[in-house]
Amino acid sequence: MNPSVSLQSYLIGLDVGGTKIETAVARANGEVLGREVTAIDVSSPEQVVQSVVHAIEQALEANGLEKLQVAAAGAGVPGQIETGNVRLAVNLNLENYSLAQALSAKLGFPFFLENDVRIAALGAFDHYSHLESLSNLAFLSIGTGIGAGLVLDGRVYRGSNGLAGEIGHTIFDPNGPQCKCGMRGCLETLAAGPALALQAQQAVQAGEQSILESFSTLDSRAVYQAFRQEDPLAGRIVRQASAYLAQAIQWIVMAYDVDKVVLGGGVSHDGAAFLQPVLEELALLRSHSSLARRQLTEQKIALFPPDLNAGLLGAVALAKSSLLPAAVPEQTKEVTDS
Amino acid sequence: MNPSVSLQSYLIGLDVGGTKIETAVARANGEVLGREVTAIDVSSPEQVVQSVVHAIEQALEANGLEKLQVAAAGAGVPGQIETGNVRLAVNLNLENYSLAQALSAKLGFPFFLENDVRIAALGAFDHYSHLESLSNLAFLSIGTGIGAGLVLDGRVYRGSNGLAGEIGHTIFDPNGPQCKCGMRGCLETLAAGPALALQAQQAVQAGEQSILESFSTLDSRAVYQAFRQEDPLAGRIVRQASAYLAQAIQWIVMAYDVDKVVLGGGVSHDGAAFLQPVLEELALLRSHSSLARRQLTEQKIALFPPDLNAGLLGAVALAKSSLLPAAVPEQTKEVTDS
Repeated sequence: MNPSVSLQSYLIGLDVGGTKIETAVARANGEVLGREVTAIDVSSPEQVVQSVVHAIEQALEANGLEKLQVAAAGAGVPGQIETGNVRLAVNLNLENYSLAQALSAKLGFPFFLENDVRIAALGAFDHYSHLESLSNLAFLSIGTGIGAGLVLDGRVYRGSNGLAGEIGHTIFDPNGPQCKCGMRGCLETLAAGPALALQAQQAVQAGEQSILESFSTLDSRAVYQAFRQEDPLAGRIVRQASAYLAQAIQWIVMAYDVDKVVLGGGVSHDGAAFLQPVLEELALLRSHSSLARRQLTEQKIALFPPDLNAGLLGAVALAKSSLLPAAVPEQTKEVTDS
Repeated sequence: MNPSVSLQSYLIGLDVGGTKIETAVARANGEVLGREVTAIDVSSPEQVVQSVVHAIEQALEANGLEKLQVAAAGAGVPGQIETGNVRLAVNLNLENYSLAQALSAKLGFPFFLENDVRIAALGAFDHYSHLESLSNLAFLSIGTGIGAGLVLDGRVYRGSNGLAGEIGHTIFDPNGPQCKCGMRGCLETLAAGPALALQAQQAVQAGEQSILESFSTLDSRAVYQAFRQEDPLAGRIVRQASAYLAQAIQWIVMAYDVDKVVLGGGVSHDGAAFLQPVLEELALLRSHSSLARRQLTEQKIALFPPDLNAGLLGAVALAKSSLLPAAVPEQTKEVTDS
């Protein structure tokens, strides 16, 4: 073996968020050795770079490693990414910034960027393809916003403008609430975390009886907590949102005909309380429809394990894929690919 | 040049329907020399094969060519296709039939099959990529049913079960009409040809005043004819269907982030009467939404020229792609493909 290869035999994966950075150190085969969480300073692009460099140094030190031993790093970033360049990442205060290049120059190893939902799809694909045979997967992230990351025919699919999978801004109810994008009844206004919180706040303000009255913070987590305690208002809100999410899953399966729809994102971290009502709504669709029975099977739907971070796993997978030889001949793929 | 190559320098493309076969003879570069329409007998698989063989013989004869001069043929078939095998094609009375193999054995040249909507997407991609730079395209077919064919990152995308793009069975109105798939308010029940016809029939039967009363056949073509004559009932039906189609186009752009959405299929053959109200509904979406203004631009939307047959062009393109050398090394594409 080439000694320089055995020297640079570690990978770094990062989940870079607006409030913190999670960093994983992994072996070249993708096996994660350790995870660290550090703070991020988004006051300027230089501070973002400094925070990421610091996060990596901390993680390496915790594992008794040095920068020279790192072959490559991958990072998920919440925003519009174009091959290493951040076009726009509001939460990181970055616009048209060559983040990968800046980090690579500081760290001395190659750095790869991907949008956070898309990299989570890659992480989920990596995770589930160890367990079953997969060609196509969608990762549906439900949090402050809603979006889908896609791996189609084994490759991350981005679309022409890096906007594929923007299901959060698909109209699910033309008479629904006004969305910040300007349209009405986008999925986000019906089933994202803030939508649940808003519905609860409005009902409580309107005088509807609910244990939610006694909560100091009325966010989606509070709604799920009240739902677990069989609060009727929370039940109504969760069931309505779950019906829209079931419809979103149906949308994804009809659009992409995937082997697997993986649910993730902040709202999904409520685990069974989140998943169960969605599965019930899917069962309802199946009870009506032979197409749904065939295409919307329960095995297709998975809640990503809340204790794992799909984005972080995807970041490691992205770094790992950069190590693959780049010139292995492949069957030529033409337009038809039949 | 190798004489055997120059000998087999013609291609055949076919659009095989339930009532007729359209056949194109083309040069190896894809240039179409002539088109023929012949009858089809779907009483048995053998008769289907015989009808296709006859269609090809007729088309070759009309162009003064022989079977020995044909390098390959491609065909679009209305049904579920798996690499040369027809899993199910109701209108052709075929189920689990190795149609490509049977035809190849009879004709002596390779034969390639694809689903009719998917092959139309390929034809549209071929057509528009001569006019502009394209990576991703969706062909939305509106006829008896509604479906989308997809070319993503330059390749036909099928999904895990050959069912990608089944937008016709996506729920657009949970309280809408019952669909034959078992669900309620699928796009097909709201905007396909039979839906328009049914709405017109029901309104006329309910006594609503309309010039449609005087039509002997109340199909979608009649509705568009009455719409052109400014009939209020037809106007209401067309505008409602067009609003759903605009929503379907928005769905497609959000799902796949394509460069182009091409409209085709039987209902679209009404040309301007079909297109204009759809464009008006899209303009309405743009007037509300910055996201729609950016992503739903008018240049992205095209009505496929009704005098061309996208499926037939796609069939020629499919045959042509089979002639490409199969072992040219390509940059290895791994899961991430970044």
